[in-house]
Amino acid sequence: MKMLINVPETVVADALRGMASAHPELTVDVENRVIVRRDAPVAGQVALVSGGGSGHEPLHGGFVGPGMLAAACPGEVFTSPVPDQMVRAAAAVDSGAGVLFIVKNYTGDVLNFDMAAELAEDEGIQVAKVLVNDDVAVTDSLYTAGRRGTGATLFVEKIAGAAAQEGRPLEQVESLARRVNEKSRSFGFALSAVTTPAKGTPTFDLPPGELELGIGIHGEPGRERRPMMTSGEIAEAAVDAVLTDLAPRNPVLVLVNGMGATPLLELYGFNAEVQRILRGRGVAVARTLVGNYVTSLDMAGASVTLCEIDEDLLALWDAPVSTPGLRWGM
Amino acid sequence: MKMLINVPETVVADALRGMASAHPELTVDVENRVIVRRDAPVAGQVALVSGGGSGHEPLHGGFVGPGMLAAACPGEVFTSPVPDQMVRAAAAVDSGAGVLFIVKNYTGDVLNFDMAAELAEDEGIQVAKVLVNDDVAVTDSLYTAGRRGTGATLFVEKIAGAAAQEGRPLEQVESLARRVNEKSRSFGFALSAVTTPAKGTPTFDLPPGELELGIGIHGEPGRERRPMMTSGEIAEAAVDAVLTDLAPRNPVLVLVNGMGATPLLELYGFNAEVQRILRGRGVAVARTLVGNYVTSLDMAGASVTLCEIDEDLLALWDAPVSTPGLRWGM
Repeated sequence: MKMLINVPETVVADALRGMASAHPELTVDVENRVIVRRDAPVAGQVALVSGGGSGHEPLHGGFVGPGMLAAACPGEVFTSPVPDQMVRAAAAVDSGAGVLFIVKNYTGDVLNFDMAAELAEDEGIQVAKVLVNDDVAVTDSLYTAGRRGTGATLFVEKIAGAAAQEGRPLEQVESLARRVNEKSRSFGFALSAVTTPAKGTPTFDLPPGELELGIGIHGEPGRERRPMMTSGEIAEAAVDAVLTDLAPRNPVLVLVNGMGATPLLELYGFNAEVQRILRGRGVAVARTLVGNYVTSLDMAGASVTLCEIDEDLLALWDAPVSTPGLRWGM
Repeated sequence: MKMLINVPETVVADALRGMASAHPELTVDVENRVIVRRDAPVAGQVALVSGGGSGHEPLHGGFVGPGMLAAACPGEVFTSPVPDQMVRAAAAVDSGAGVLFIVKNYTGDVLNFDMAAELAEDEGIQVAKVLVNDDVAVTDSLYTAGRRGTGATLFVEKIAGAAAQEGRPLEQVESLARRVNEKSRSFGFALSAVTTPAKGTPTFDLPPGELELGIGIHGEPGRERRPMMTSGEIAEAAVDAVLTDLAPRNPVLVLVNGMGATPLLELYGFNAEVQRILRGRGVAVARTLVGNYVTSLDMAGASVTLCEIDEDLLALWDAPVSTPGLRWGM
């Protein structure tokens, strides 16, 4: 596979240098791999810190900014960042109001954020943690005990980030983040495999004419291989999988998320099918976001995430946000 | 090639239905294929109308909104929209201050916008036109006499859109748009071919281990095939090609634009190389934008666009914009 890189070893550092040039509103510490809101710490604000393996951009570094994350720690491609990055990020952004770690449920991330929380508390930083585990496709997977964390991470980071921006205290921001995760479910699928720079060839084999339903964001196996389906059939499978696990009585946020290589034209067409099926199931849609947000490098495919909301969550969703990857109202 | 579609015949209509669901701030006429700012016509404002073949999303429909386009007309994939769409769009958005057609230099688009301008003027709408032809790679190409219009379209639509939003008169908005085009140059490359829904197989053959320098946004042939190069080497070739034709004495806007399937991680890494080379050539960078903006469906690759600016153009670039694809400051 051809890639737009120099050598695999410098992919993450190169990307961080490129982010630094493009986003003077962020402080990018290339050596220590920490991306921070330039105005951090912000007095009176809880600071959200997230991170995970690289290769899911704009998640997480592209979600740093007012109204969302205070800092992000990128690991190597598909590899957890180390505790030292997280402690450094926490120390850089803590205003005294405390830090919330947002952790996708992958074993490495969970262990490292746990360790980082202990180390940060030793330094006198108050730390809370919330685990994101929204993917209904499988329990226990290649890198995960329990459910994987995927698209809902965006909802958690945006909504908790808005609460932090409003000056809500740590316990409230933490409990909101937890609520968003509990009310969110995702289901993804792949039309092609993903290729990491280090490996250079697809990480799994997906024959022509087949798709994989229930794929993870690192190409972890899903539920089943099927002969290729139409956009409408895939939307039905994905929405059904989500609604089997979440029976929303209130309106939902919808994220139709591209895995990376699927054209926006197709994602919008897929969204039309998702909306049609939700209407048929009697699910009211409050807001819809379509695009590449929680990606898997060059994988073709998409995921559907629903989050059941109330008025408070909707107001926080609509609140201004200003990050490279998500921006409105400011 | 697997695609996330129903059938090739409904790809554009499906995408428009999906856009309508996701963007209540736009009026999407699926049947007539016109996307309009919901608040149009806006009294006292010149209205920008653009359009072209689908498959380049977010261009143009994703650039409709306050501070950018008033309306967009999507054609079939890689096929010009028809004059009827353009006239309908012009009629929907004209406040009496006039309409500016922004036309990428492809033969079909030029002919159809010319015809539409005549028809609209027959209806009493004052129309000006500006041609975008920024691609230095080749003169005369598969669909073009002269240079192709590519990445600079974003600069023209954003900067002229800000001028329109400020209430500047048609002659000024038109002359600004023309100036932005004259001061902009682009160069693109492909690491993989593009596949259209109608064809279902790659539209050209790009062997493993080779890239195509100077590619167009429809996979039109470029300048040369070369054995695969590093990100730094490609950046050097692209920047050199642009600077051979544009010798900026003032700071530039930089667009590092993904063709669709190249991961954002790689685009940021590529941007680091572009910035390094610009520094080495003594070119000052005022602003940088990195992402998928003027795409070519599932093609892997990217392009570099530079636009030499002055203070007025920079202020218009920085002015608030609120569209699905580009949004800041509002």
